[in-house]
Amino acid sequence: MHNHSQAYSCLGACRQCVVLFLTSVFLCVFAGLSAAKLLKASGLSPVVLEARDRVGGRTFTARNKETKWVDLGGAYIGPTQNRIFRLAREYGIKTYKVNEQEKQVHYVKGKSYPFKGSFPPMWNPIVLLDFNNLWRTMDEMGTEIPREAPWRAPHAEEWDKMTMQELIDKVCWTRTVRSFVRLFVNVNVTSEPHEVSALWFLWYVKQCGGTMRIFSTTNGGQERKFQGGSSQISECMARELGDRVKLQSPVYRIDQTGDTVVVETLDKQTYTAKYVIVAVPPSLNLKMHFNPELPSLRNQLIHRVPMGSVIKCMVYYRENFWRKKGFCGSMVIEEEGSPIDLTLDDTKPDGTVPCIMGLRRICEIYSRVLGSDEALHPVHYEEKNWCEEEYSGGCYTAYFPPGILTQYGKVLREPVGRLYFAGTETATEWSGYMEGAVEAGERAAREVMCAMGKIPRTQIWQTEPQCVDVPAFPFVTTFWERNLPSVGGLLKLMGVSTFLSAAAAVGLVACKKGLLPRS
Amino acid sequence: MHNHSQAYSCLGACRQCVVLFLTSVFLCVFAGLSAAKLLKASGLSPVVLEARDRVGGRTFTARNKETKWVDLGGAYIGPTQNRIFRLAREYGIKTYKVNEQEKQVHYVKGKSYPFKGSFPPMWNPIVLLDFNNLWRTMDEMGTEIPREAPWRAPHAEEWDKMTMQELIDKVCWTRTVRSFVRLFVNVNVTSEPHEVSALWFLWYVKQCGGTMRIFSTTNGGQERKFQGGSSQISECMARELGDRVKLQSPVYRIDQTGDTVVVETLDKQTYTAKYVIVAVPPSLNLKMHFNPELPSLRNQLIHRVPMGSVIKCMVYYRENFWRKKGFCGSMVIEEEGSPIDLTLDDTKPDGTVPCIMGLRRICEIYSRVLGSDEALHPVHYEEKNWCEEEYSGGCYTAYFPPGILTQYGKVLREPVGRLYFAGTETATEWSGYMEGAVEAGERAAREVMCAMGKIPRTQIWQTEPQCVDVPAFPFVTTFWERNLPSVGGLLKLMGVSTFLSAAAAVGLVACKKGLLPRS
Repeated sequence: MHNHSQAYSCLGACRQCVVLFLTSVFLCVFAGLSAAKLLKASGLSPVVLEARDRVGGRTFTARNKETKWVDLGGAYIGPTQNRIFRLAREYGIKTYKVNEQEKQVHYVKGKSYPFKGSFPPMWNPIVLLDFNNLWRTMDEMGTEIPREAPWRAPHAEEWDKMTMQELIDKVCWTRTVRSFVRLFVNVNVTSEPHEVSALWFLWYVKQCGGTMRIFSTTNGGQERKFQGGSSQISECMARELGDRVKLQSPVYRIDQTGDTVVVETLDKQTYTAKYVIVAVPPSLNLKMHFNPELPSLRNQLIHRVPMGSVIKCMVYYRENFWRKKGFCGSMVIEEEGSPIDLTLDDTKPDGTVPCIMGLRRICEIYSRVLGSDEALHPVHYEEKNWCEEEYSGGCYTAYFPPGILTQYGKVLREPVGRLYFAGTETATEWSGYMEGAVEAGERAAREVMCAMGKIPRTQIWQTEPQCVDVPAFPFVTTFWERNLPSVGGLLKLMGVSTFLSAAAAVGLVACKKGLLPRS
Repeated sequence: MHNHSQAYSCLGACRQCVVLFLTSVFLCVFAGLSAAKLLKASGLSPVVLEARDRVGGRTFTARNKETKWVDLGGAYIGPTQNRIFRLAREYGIKTYKVNEQEKQVHYVKGKSYPFKGSFPPMWNPIVLLDFNNLWRTMDEMGTEIPREAPWRAPHAEEWDKMTMQELIDKVCWTRTVRSFVRLFVNVNVTSEPHEVSALWFLWYVKQCGGTMRIFSTTNGGQERKFQGGSSQISECMARELGDRVKLQSPVYRIDQTGDTVVVETLDKQTYTAKYVIVAVPPSLNLKMHFNPELPSLRNQLIHRVPMGSVIKCMVYYRENFWRKKGFCGSMVIEEEGSPIDLTLDDTKPDGTVPCIMGLRRICEIYSRVLGSDEALHPVHYEEKNWCEEEYSGGCYTAYFPPGILTQYGKVLREPVGRLYFAGTETATEWSGYMEGAVEAGERAAREVMCAMGKIPRTQIWQTEPQCVDVPAFPFVTTFWERNLPSVGGLLKLMGVSTFLSAAAAVGLVACKKGLLPRS
């Protein structure tokens, strides 16, 4: 079969799926669908080629009687993610706040400490200095990293040669803080500090709005969820696009040697198009055979940015026993070999279907952290291992090992002939999140429109006004947070003051003994 | 088209090509072809599916009137690589020694220093201690790494979390040695010390026979070349296999949900087989769509092991001007931003076609190193950029970034259903070399034979007798090389001896002053 489309055409496969916009454009999931939606709204007729039998990509809402609905993939949204809120609003999808009424629990060295706020409090004064200095340092380093071109940061090369572990070893003085920051890296990018480039991780945190914004529930990236599940957004977009969305159509070949781009799918369909948007994670570009071959740098890039590893697990209980104990369900778990680092309450907003979201092998650890045998008796369980998905390669997002961002980063979204690149990895705000996927998809769609002469180059990148329902509050730092010394600084200070005291003491003695001339 | 084969079937795509053994087996290049050759010799009828329009994979012999022939890919062979010598001998392909008659040149800080031997000599005694300690340390660490399972080394986790750069920073005291070891990493694995896991690099050097064996020309990995070029080996194997080798047949789909494995190629052919050997680098497994999906660990592994980056460049001159100056053509070049680290003479063994093998942008630097304007006037030039090859992804071999070998390494050659894995990356001796490809291909072929009940499990792994024409000589270390302290050791020693001398002096004074009781 050979579908010839008069106009133009874009290919994209967003996230784990290979989505294709026909009459012209392929893409995927949020990025692919958002691009297609925008192109259609502009009077074009895109086609979306999706590898899977469903839309949604790295979001996946399962529905069954035990859970009503449950997000087994991307789920959380929060202030400053204005594009995804705009889409939700358009489709009338409501959001609700993740429960943080009661106290969170910080479990460390086998004990549970209830707390409130974004980060667990530290009581040891040295640890406190170290902890405070860590966040301050990461955010300060972030300020010099351009979100659209981290490879142009003044210290880009130096920081890119370091793993995040090396940076941690340099910045942190105490074991407590080192252990916590490892959890922080794990939770945010589902990979280990020794696997990722320091430059990349600092950029990642920065483009989400900093250490507080990325890690917080209230006022941060985990503030809300979609009532009914996040897949609804892509389902609504897919419905709008109708039969332009082709499911179970993994793209294996893209040929742009002729006047149009010819795209072939595993189900033996051939699509031709003027433009193609590839909306899959960089490493899944490898699923396609390109003619002509990709340029050298892109060919190497796509081998170098693996996806993180995560298994999302939901455990269901008869009742919300943790709330009765005064806990909201958020646990920050630091334990050698623990299968989970962080949990959140996943009970429905009306209080039904009590559930805790976390990772594998979790009941025993929940029981220890919450101090309740009830945790050992869940009534239902759901999980999704994103590592085994061929069209994801992993989740949540691609990570950059040391040395890659500065050498290959600049071709991440550089078009190749009539191919344009979307996918949340190519975003500059909340890359790695649904928000980043929308940014990327819409930007790629506007690149195509620009190439077609429909909009000027200056309109490709657009800022998004703040969502009125979900205002972002600034994180206010205290005088002490800004000015307390680091542990190293304190030691120096103590050195100086010891010297000064000693000098003063010597002076005093000398003076008393009459060794100094008196003026 | 649907080719049904009665017996069994193996798929493999070796290195940059996707080779397929039909009546049953795919593979590629050395690994693929070696597997197919062995299977055919055992009475089976394999088919090889090759992605490119030529066999040879990461070896590529160009032929033209200017060069006669030139190896633009894998070329060097040496003692202990007995499998590849066995094949060469069988096909009557002669080898010759790379010219090392005259002196080599070590170019450092803008000056050229002629030398003989495997490594340039170091004159500063502190640098010498540091240099000696580096090689000794790397080789000693290598002894505790099992070549068939580096992830089981006693310190595997610790070393895998470090980049090679971190290890260098820990072991080396002097800038001279740090700079040299960076070159050593670059040359051997075409990637940077900050990109690769220390465990992986130490394993890589160990399985080639140690620091001396891997880096040496005489008695090492670069001792010889094939008279007429290395592609001849694969061409001879392909000739032997006849029309069982299918060129321009990139595999994009492997389905093993039925009783046989069904393989589809870009040229719209379908092959069925009982077994398939995939003989491509791990990351090129991504070019294929698998049904059922690959297991979780393998799916993640193949995203995590990129190929190195290298552009091989040959510069041809009217005459061998370097030999006249007393240089053999080997240059070890340490200069910030230099496009090349290492060169070798590539003149034909009969003295014709004077040539230097190195990397890009090379004439100016050759001229500076050799102190001769003649280097600025080559008569011919050949290059191959392996980074732009879709079916290579890069060259010479896959590297492991930090954290990957211990987490995912163990599934590198673990069969998946009726799929077996070859390719030089899966070898345990000279992995990354032609030798490793032969080892891997033959091992995978025997795995298939074992699965068919033709040989017992104990016969899968076989050692290779030494090639009589190319004996390996042990590298003898001197007493001093074994026992000289490291710089750190020396400082400690000096500390102790200073303390002892000081103590002795104090004792002497005390004694003289009569402060000590005399017995």
